[in-house]
Amino acid sequence: MEKLAQLQAYLRDQQLDVAYVSDPETIEYLTGFGSDPVERVLALFVFPDQEPFLFAPALEVEDIQSTGWTHPVYGYLDHEDPFAMIAKDVRARITNPIHWGIQKNQLTVERLQSLQAEFPEAQFAADLTSVIERMRLIKTPDEIEKLRAAGKEADFAFEVAFNTIAPGKTEADVAAEIEYQLKKRGVMEMSFATLVQAGKHASQPHGDTGMNEIKEHKLVLLDLGTVHDGYISDASRTVAVGSLSDQLQEIYAVCLKAQLAAQNAVRPGVTAAELDKVARDIIDEAGYGQYFIHRLGHGMGMSEHEFPSIMEGNGLKLEENMCFSIEPGIYIPGVAGVRIEDCVRVTADGCEPFTHTSKVLQNVLK
Amino acid sequence: MEKLAQLQAYLRDQQLDVAYVSDPETIEYLTGFGSDPVERVLALFVFPDQEPFLFAPALEVEDIQSTGWTHPVYGYLDHEDPFAMIAKDVRARITNPIHWGIQKNQLTVERLQSLQAEFPEAQFAADLTSVIERMRLIKTPDEIEKLRAAGKEADFAFEVAFNTIAPGKTEADVAAEIEYQLKKRGVMEMSFATLVQAGKHASQPHGDTGMNEIKEHKLVLLDLGTVHDGYISDASRTVAVGSLSDQLQEIYAVCLKAQLAAQNAVRPGVTAAELDKVARDIIDEAGYGQYFIHRLGHGMGMSEHEFPSIMEGNGLKLEENMCFSIEPGIYIPGVAGVRIEDCVRVTADGCEPFTHTSKVLQNVLK
Repeated sequence: MEKLAQLQAYLRDQQLDVAYVSDPETIEYLTGFGSDPVERVLALFVFPDQEPFLFAPALEVEDIQSTGWTHPVYGYLDHEDPFAMIAKDVRARITNPIHWGIQKNQLTVERLQSLQAEFPEAQFAADLTSVIERMRLIKTPDEIEKLRAAGKEADFAFEVAFNTIAPGKTEADVAAEIEYQLKKRGVMEMSFATLVQAGKHASQPHGDTGMNEIKEHKLVLLDLGTVHDGYISDASRTVAVGSLSDQLQEIYAVCLKAQLAAQNAVRPGVTAAELDKVARDIIDEAGYGQYFIHRLGHGMGMSEHEFPSIMEGNGLKLEENMCFSIEPGIYIPGVAGVRIEDCVRVTADGCEPFTHTSKVLQNVLK
Repeated sequence: MEKLAQLQAYLRDQQLDVAYVSDPETIEYLTGFGSDPVERVLALFVFPDQEPFLFAPALEVEDIQSTGWTHPVYGYLDHEDPFAMIAKDVRARITNPIHWGIQKNQLTVERLQSLQAEFPEAQFAADLTSVIERMRLIKTPDEIEKLRAAGKEADFAFEVAFNTIAPGKTEADVAAEIEYQLKKRGVMEMSFATLVQAGKHASQPHGDTGMNEIKEHKLVLLDLGTVHDGYISDASRTVAVGSLSDQLQEIYAVCLKAQLAAQNAVRPGVTAAELDKVARDIIDEAGYGQYFIHRLGHGMGMSEHEFPSIMEGNGLKLEENMCFSIEPGIYIPGVAGVRIEDCVRVTADGCEPFTHTSKVLQNVLK
């Protein structure tokens, strides 16, 4: 339990009495137990010098024990009061905990108030957000292995997609085939709903896969990823269906140039903002700056919402084993959208991408 | 915008200056715009007597306008400070809002503190949770139509499943086929990951679909649902693969008896707790009470996490057009799991189920 030990050391260092870890993803990161308890309470309590415990819905207890969690887990039934039970379990370790650490970016106001009602003298000023983000920012060898495996699954998904895309099929047909082939291999979970956008529909970078028909001489944008043992892949490719107009070829070429330049610029010491600027300058200079309306990338690992955020204003210096996406996009309303994305790991002198599908413009009809 | 008008009336009644709606699902309920902004800020601000506005990531603005939202929407870019911008937009309507309503069950401590920093004199005591829950508790005719349509999709999914389940196939094969057939029809979103559990694997009510092989003389548990225009279906069936032992037949029969008795007992005026007890008493009397380890049901509509919660201790009286699941289960560790579930709407004198697949024990090999 090296990760838990790190958090315990932090609590000692900060003179905190107890940490309330409330976010299911962080709980999975720290304990190996992954679950979506939705509105039920799943919580991890960590102490500087006492044994941690999990608190969970009763129907999760069997699962938790089977994952190898060797510390106590206390279950509660739906009609029971979870925070009264938590208070009892915490007080069994520390009679009167004063200084709490909480995840301010995850914990709801309601649950904080429930806890305050049980511990009226306690202080909830300390925020665990940054220590947890910092721990999760640098991936361990074990985590990197899982990210590589998830990347291979995404490469397989692109292979399926390229073999499936054809004029007359719908976006939905392609997404269905991708997820079907993955599930048959036992890849049960996508990191997000598989995005297939045909033609001008791709100009909405947060649109959905729908019943739009794929047409010749247009682009199809794919954005997809899988979950492998709790770790994700996330990659985008944009492919041609037959020959393309000069305009479509140009926006693809500009986007690819930006993506490759940014990926080449990755190394320890470069800042996140500098990396964003490498790609943005290329798109700006080509005259498409107004159509690149999101940051260059996001951190990733257990989800696509980790640090570092690769964007303007982020002076964070890249370090070895940070992992993030590099995904410039050009979205021209009513015309087309292009996005090209690999997620990478920072190495000692560059980066290692997790996906390896060619980024040269592919014509799926050839 | 009848729903927004209801919320505005509530603000006037409670003498609140502004409501900060922070939960994407409630925003979809009130505005018709559905989106998962993950760590980005999506927010709806509602005033007693001024025009409401949406605040969203810039890349969502085109989508929002295309859904028919006629009030203002303000976009922000990733490197901008959303709460400073929100403060400006709010102050353009009310110079010094003091009494805020917030969603305490959804809003994070961090975002509340960001807002407090912009409005140091404001009070955030008022909780919108119960007024929103109350609005969402009673479904409108339009919502009920969508729930019926989603239910039909779930019935189709069971048909696919019953035709697919066979000895030698994996749980994953069955889930893959279900979602493939749905996607080909344009049903792109499941309300949760399709659950297929073979044999003893089904004794973990919150387990996953995996590579376990389906075997003859065992049960297979299915729990699935779709999303239709923002509204979900959610239903479970357990089917036999060939002939079954007396024990398996008995636990199925007990679970079915409990499910039917509870569904028959639904009518306005019955409490949620009484309904839970109808099913629980039958399972208790048959000697399986210790294996029914969750509440009888949950409210549903836009998600499976709505009210009313059908459980011990909930004295809420059912009213017409409340919608919830009725899903008793018997889970014998190492042996088998059975769950049978329909979601229903309370009618004037009973209930209307949204799914109609037979609950008589089916042998898929026949």
